[in-house]
Amino acid sequence: MDLYDAIKGRRDIRSYFKSDPILDEVLAKILLAAHLAPSVGYSQPWNFIIIRDENIKRKVKEEVERQRLRYRELLDEDRRKLFDTIKIEGIMEAPINIAVTCDPSRFGPHVLGRITMPETCNYSTVLAIENLWLAARAENLGMGWVSFLDKNKIKEILGIPSNVEFIAYLTLGYVTKFPERPELEEKGWNYRLPLSEVVFEDRWGNKPNEKLLEKLNSAKI
Amino acid sequence: MDLYDAIKGRRDIRSYFKSDPILDEVLAKILLAAHLAPSVGYSQPWNFIIIRDENIKRKVKEEVERQRLRYRELLDEDRRKLFDTIKIEGIMEAPINIAVTCDPSRFGPHVLGRITMPETCNYSTVLAIENLWLAARAENLGMGWVSFLDKNKIKEILGIPSNVEFIAYLTLGYVTKFPERPELEEKGWNYRLPLSEVVFEDRWGNKPNEKLLEKLNSAKI
Repeated sequence: MDLYDAIKGRRDIRSYFKSDPILDEVLAKILLAAHLAPSVGYSQPWNFIIIRDENIKRKVKEEVERQRLRYRELLDEDRRKLFDTIKIEGIMEAPINIAVTCDPSRFGPHVLGRITMPETCNYSTVLAIENLWLAARAENLGMGWVSFLDKNKIKEILGIPSNVEFIAYLTLGYVTKFPERPELEEKGWNYRLPLSEVVFEDRWGNKPNEKLLEKLNSAKI
Repeated sequence: MDLYDAIKGRRDIRSYFKSDPILDEVLAKILLAAHLAPSVGYSQPWNFIIIRDENIKRKVKEEVERQRLRYRELLDEDRRKLFDTIKIEGIMEAPINIAVTCDPSRFGPHVLGRITMPETCNYSTVLAIENLWLAARAENLGMGWVSFLDKNKIKEILGIPSNVEFIAYLTLGYVTKFPERPELEEKGWNYRLPLSEVVFEDRWGNKPNEKLLEKLNSAKI
């Protein structure tokens, strides 16, 4: 699949999972795409826990539901009504869940380029997750990132050691459709910011020059 | 460009930058690819500061050099000799530098899915950086991520407000080549881990089953 088509067509999937199994060969391919991501000092700090066990999935789902209700309480009435129409996870429907972690001890304490910004260890793992997401799209697999959860609770469920960082809980499966637009845009939760509003020149707050601005406003991939 | 070719051919570039200018049209295109990344609660928290000013680049380079020397002191003699052969940044050679930030205040305090894991704000920005990196590769542009720096020093140089997170300092330009293998592998700094070693099943530490293991060991993209 063309890179730009994968980027444009990728969605955060919660609603459209099918139970069709994923071949090990396809799973291995998208994990390899993730593993080829850049990492600080070439430290490759990631691990991927492939979860198919229904009991484990159910425990995670219960934790997510607890956190969903907590969040719901923070919203005003209008926003809460809208939130109730939004499905936030497809844990049980997706045939595979993947927990992604970051091990800061890999390749010793002095990883090149990490001392000044220790968070680049976690960031490296996140770069791998985007590769995984795009590769999944190229294989017609939908993926969703579920973050309504207490990290320590998930670490306990999955037996993740205390020195290893929990980064993400992902759901993966074939889908009935990839929606045209992100669900949170379709439902009117948020809107897409104009590209030109997130670009500055040379210093924070400096608007781009006229020529670049025009290209930002007409950019297409 | 095919997604898998972009993933395989992407490199962290420090040594091979050419001074050839980058058209605004091309720059806008890869920034759009970044802007189409997923983000927690669709919050799109990123900003991209496009830096061409030589004085600003020089100030950043001086800071990076300070941090390079600090790191060098931590290494034993053999490792230090090897480190001295590794170029860690191409700040002045790359025609464009890009500072990437994350604004946690965007779309209000209650971003959907962020309360339990506030770091997903920064993580969203990192997902956008991987899109940018792959799109750059598709446009034959090399990119390097420079992390030998004190974040606060860079925020000061670029006038980034205190509540906005500094995430990454990137260098971008056309290149004389994309090396076959990562430079840190070529130089013998680190080696590529086997994919099967970073994958577990259902729980931390559980090796994948035989069938999946075989596919992981023979995976190709």
